[in-house]
Amino acid sequence: MKSKLKSQGNSLVVPVAPSRGRLRPLGLDEVRITGGFWARRREVNTNAILDHCREWMERVGWIGNFRAPVAERRGREFADSDVYKLLEAMTWAGVETDTITEAIASAQEPDGYLNTNFGRPGQQPRYSDLEWGHELYCYGHLIQAGVAELRTRGGGELAKIALRAADHVCATFGPDGVAGVCGHAEIETALAELARATGEQRYLDQATLFVERRGHGTLADGEFGRAYHQDDMPVRQATVLRGHAVRALYLASGAVDVAVETGDEELLAAVVRQWEGAVARRTYLTGGMGSHHRDEAFGDDFVLPPDRAYSETCAGVASVMLSWRLLLATGEPRFADLAERTLFNVIATSPAEDGRSFFYSNTLHRRRRGTVPEADVQVPRAESSLRAPWFAVSCCPPNVARTLALLPGYLATTDAGGVQIHQYADAEITTGGIALRIRTDYPSDGRVTVTVDRAPDRPWTLSLRVPAWAEGTPAWLVDPEGRRRPVAPGAAELTRVFRPGDEIRLELPVEPRWLRPDPRIDAIRGTAAVQRGPLVYCAESVDLPDDRDVDAIRVDPSAPPEGRADGSVVVAGEIGAEGDDPWPYRPSAAPPTAGDRTDIVLVPYHSWANRGPSTMRVWLPTVEPTP
Amino acid sequence: MKSKLKSQGNSLVVPVAPSRGRLRPLGLDEVRITGGFWARRREVNTNAILDHCREWMERVGWIGNFRAPVAERRGREFADSDVYKLLEAMTWAGVETDTITEAIASAQEPDGYLNTNFGRPGQQPRYSDLEWGHELYCYGHLIQAGVAELRTRGGGELAKIALRAADHVCATFGPDGVAGVCGHAEIETALAELARATGEQRYLDQATLFVERRGHGTLADGEFGRAYHQDDMPVRQATVLRGHAVRALYLASGAVDVAVETGDEELLAAVVRQWEGAVARRTYLTGGMGSHHRDEAFGDDFVLPPDRAYSETCAGVASVMLSWRLLLATGEPRFADLAERTLFNVIATSPAEDGRSFFYSNTLHRRRRGTVPEADVQVPRAESSLRAPWFAVSCCPPNVARTLALLPGYLATTDAGGVQIHQYADAEITTGGIALRIRTDYPSDGRVTVTVDRAPDRPWTLSLRVPAWAEGTPAWLVDPEGRRRPVAPGAAELTRVFRPGDEIRLELPVEPRWLRPDPRIDAIRGTAAVQRGPLVYCAESVDLPDDRDVDAIRVDPSAPPEGRADGSVVVAGEIGAEGDDPWPYRPSAAPPTAGDRTDIVLVPYHSWANRGPSTMRVWLPTVEPTP
Repeated sequence: MKSKLKSQGNSLVVPVAPSRGRLRPLGLDEVRITGGFWARRREVNTNAILDHCREWMERVGWIGNFRAPVAERRGREFADSDVYKLLEAMTWAGVETDTITEAIASAQEPDGYLNTNFGRPGQQPRYSDLEWGHELYCYGHLIQAGVAELRTRGGGELAKIALRAADHVCATFGPDGVAGVCGHAEIETALAELARATGEQRYLDQATLFVERRGHGTLADGEFGRAYHQDDMPVRQATVLRGHAVRALYLASGAVDVAVETGDEELLAAVVRQWEGAVARRTYLTGGMGSHHRDEAFGDDFVLPPDRAYSETCAGVASVMLSWRLLLATGEPRFADLAERTLFNVIATSPAEDGRSFFYSNTLHRRRRGTVPEADVQVPRAESSLRAPWFAVSCCPPNVARTLALLPGYLATTDAGGVQIHQYADAEITTGGIALRIRTDYPSDGRVTVTVDRAPDRPWTLSLRVPAWAEGTPAWLVDPEGRRRPVAPGAAELTRVFRPGDEIRLELPVEPRWLRPDPRIDAIRGTAAVQRGPLVYCAESVDLPDDRDVDAIRVDPSAPPEGRADGSVVVAGEIGAEGDDPWPYRPSAAPPTAGDRTDIVLVPYHSWANRGPSTMRVWLPTVEPTP
Repeated sequence: MKSKLKSQGNSLVVPVAPSRGRLRPLGLDEVRITGGFWARRREVNTNAILDHCREWMERVGWIGNFRAPVAERRGREFADSDVYKLLEAMTWAGVETDTITEAIASAQEPDGYLNTNFGRPGQQPRYSDLEWGHELYCYGHLIQAGVAELRTRGGGELAKIALRAADHVCATFGPDGVAGVCGHAEIETALAELARATGEQRYLDQATLFVERRGHGTLADGEFGRAYHQDDMPVRQATVLRGHAVRALYLASGAVDVAVETGDEELLAAVVRQWEGAVARRTYLTGGMGSHHRDEAFGDDFVLPPDRAYSETCAGVASVMLSWRLLLATGEPRFADLAERTLFNVIATSPAEDGRSFFYSNTLHRRRRGTVPEADVQVPRAESSLRAPWFAVSCCPPNVARTLALLPGYLATTDAGGVQIHQYADAEITTGGIALRIRTDYPSDGRVTVTVDRAPDRPWTLSLRVPAWAEGTPAWLVDPEGRRRPVAPGAAELTRVFRPGDEIRLELPVEPRWLRPDPRIDAIRGTAAVQRGPLVYCAESVDLPDDRDVDAIRVDPSAPPEGRADGSVVVAGEIGAEGDDPWPYRPSAAPPTAGDRTDIVLVPYHSWANRGPSTMRVWLPTVEPTP
């Protein structure tokens, strides 16, 4: 069944515009974030991150590459894509992009080919290295930027460049063309979105072809194995996300787009199954994905070492992209649950408070205090110490920028029955005949008040997500008459004729709580962690007395954690003395050296490493006896 | 103080020939291994491994490189070194090396330069990539092969090539030459050994210069940081082994050689301190070193994940090299303890029983059954699944071969007071006026009988190492009159006038025992492992009922493990049912699903993966309640 590719939503200004699916996205012209946690970060994005990225991309030559001769080309093979990600972010943010777009236009070949690293005299030929060349991946980000321009401005130079590139891709890799795929998925979701933005079926056909081609071993086997590129088995056969995490999640996003537009229920079910497997067995408490440093990849089931967590920021971006698509397709709140977890604990963790340095990977346990990176030095590697201003591979900063820029597009949806609010922030929503105001101090406070400013004179349903993290503690929905009823995790719904001035309140239990890991996660057996609302907490050495390090902490989860007004949490425990033993394996383990009973302060994970070099851990060993 | 560089031992046929130090090594002409565990493996080495390596090096072109034109050069940048390692192994084993040596000779430049990957027209210039080019590293292995020829045959073509190369190195990198070091340490120990083998002081001076130069940042900082190349701080300042494990251990070995020959107590103490730190906090139960896959490197303290253990076979080889040097220098049995652990659990684990496939890395926990590698396919990567016949990077097979070939050289020493036996095997020792026969079924059996066949007519001391693993259980020394006395870990000594026919017996407690990890090793908290004598044990899925996997096992360490005559061990435990949970972090962890109480069979770790694809784990979660 072929799609008509017309967005089913009212707005065109949406990050993802499926023509069918359970829910219809609301656009950036329908949802405004007006204050609170995310408004502050979006302000930092507009005022600092966008400029920071642009300045660095000028300084390291990645923008200049589009004008430079071959000999002066700088950066890694995928540097073009970071310029495109930045352009996408700027476009969603309403910032002028003409100068950069002009540079890009000057580098496009007459047949639509565009890449600063291949195809010119003195460079490798076009498409001579599909495994690592990233040419199609770069187009993917170019096209996403072009789609953002089509949706926010109705078109422009960037969109024209993207369309020429997309036509070139279809001509080159179509049914009669090169039967290959890119080593890094991304073109799939981009082409599907371009089809949606333009109504052109052939872009969807090409996206479908790329999704179907993958998994048949057309890419060379390499050091990391075929699963690294997800080329080990067809998408519709896989049972869990695997291989390079960002690749896996971009591919899955593209597969959802294709499945939705082509009505391919089997493909959609396959991606849901992969998501379920990854969330049940391959995801960190933070929502972070990817536990291998070597290949930036998912580990085997339950291989989730906190101290070697890779949890790349871009995998967080891609995971939110995937969850959002699955939410639109199915309407199931569990996808919004994971998106929330990932937004608050991965996306919000990467940038420093001033928006001028970033985590590339987001470890859950830092054992050594780092040194402060110099402010104007590009670091060669993605180390999980302090945030760095720029990396040789700097996909993460512009990826954070585009996510923050389009964030209002991930907050709410509509369907025939009403409006669904998935993420909580001070916001204003106007869609169809409905206008809503949301006021909340979430996630510090669990109360979310929705005020109806305008509503049709007929019954409709307001749906508010009750997060899965609230499991086990009552949440409450208070109707305009002040009647409270308990609501369970999932969608709390109120159906009625709403009147202007009606207030609906959701009360979520954001008291801090202890969490225990599945015993199959070997790396954190015998530990506990604290979560408060969607926020994961951590111990950071700067909060410990006497310059102690976090590995000396043991906590007592029999005492409930206590939330403080400043956003910190206090738990009971002890700070032991570090012993020394010439050999760490004994017939009976020495009991951990007991320390004095003391209060231990925990802070939100996203806020760590903003106060100088420190050690940090999320999962804390317990005082319960180790045999 | 300058050394006279004359070996203090009686024999020249030794792997390491210090001119001073607490103990004097016995040579391969003084110690013969006549039966048992190591004799079987040495037989496999002579009959299979050496040929296997040679055939593969011919097939993949690494030997041919020495004759081939530039365009046909094959393999990685360090492929030359593997040919040299094989030559060293063949030389110690007494196998003819002429054909290969001839090829190598043909590639040496008139000025002594020798490397198939650099310096010829169409290649990168000599020494243009000290970080990754491995030129000095390759010389190091060439020189070690040359030293083996000097020591076993008094010299020959290989030694001449090595000497020319060494002279070229001294001329190029001497005090007035290029002030650089190699990205991969190895030349240091090789030059020191060449100085010992030739009496030429300048080779020692050059080795000293290389050791002193390292740690001053002459190598470019890269993705893995300066510690990867141990170029982050001078050797004499470092407190623990760090960075790439093989590099770190080869460097430390060279530093010991230099320290011993130059009487540099500070440098020796620095390496001892680094060894202690690594053993206390960065070593697996098997003796394996290196917990990072990404950079084949040591992790931070207590980062020892069993399922991501890298524990490269070559790091095991290098660790034994280092421990042997420290034992000779200090006489302390703890160095022989670690060497024993590493020999039985890393070196013995790498080759398959038939000597035709190998582990590159030696994981302590395998979660997925692998597939059987094809017998004639070089695998691109070092995966911890089944052993593979050959790797794109195949340092490990010839490194195992040279270690097995020279193994008798690691068994025993002398000093002014007598003979010290450090490792137990059926063996014959003849040195000075003393001849000893050793009979034992070690490590299956703890009884070691030493028979005196010849002895001087004056008192001397026989010293037998009581391994540290015997701690807590009595070991016994039985003198020729049958008197038993308990002996503690360390050196058990008997001083007297021995007579031909005298029998001395050591009785070591090889009953299997439970071991518990230091609670600071997060990755194995709440688990236990079994060791029997020096052998670490593991559960392997092929020994479980109903095709179950090892991750379903929980063991009960309150019941002592029971040794069986076939070498296996039986422990009490249960095999649980695997549950499923859509999200693995809960307010209270589900108790592990209890299974039926059952016996669980464990096998020696070195023997795993010889019975088809399987899952395996060394550290077993316990049935003790997880909160």
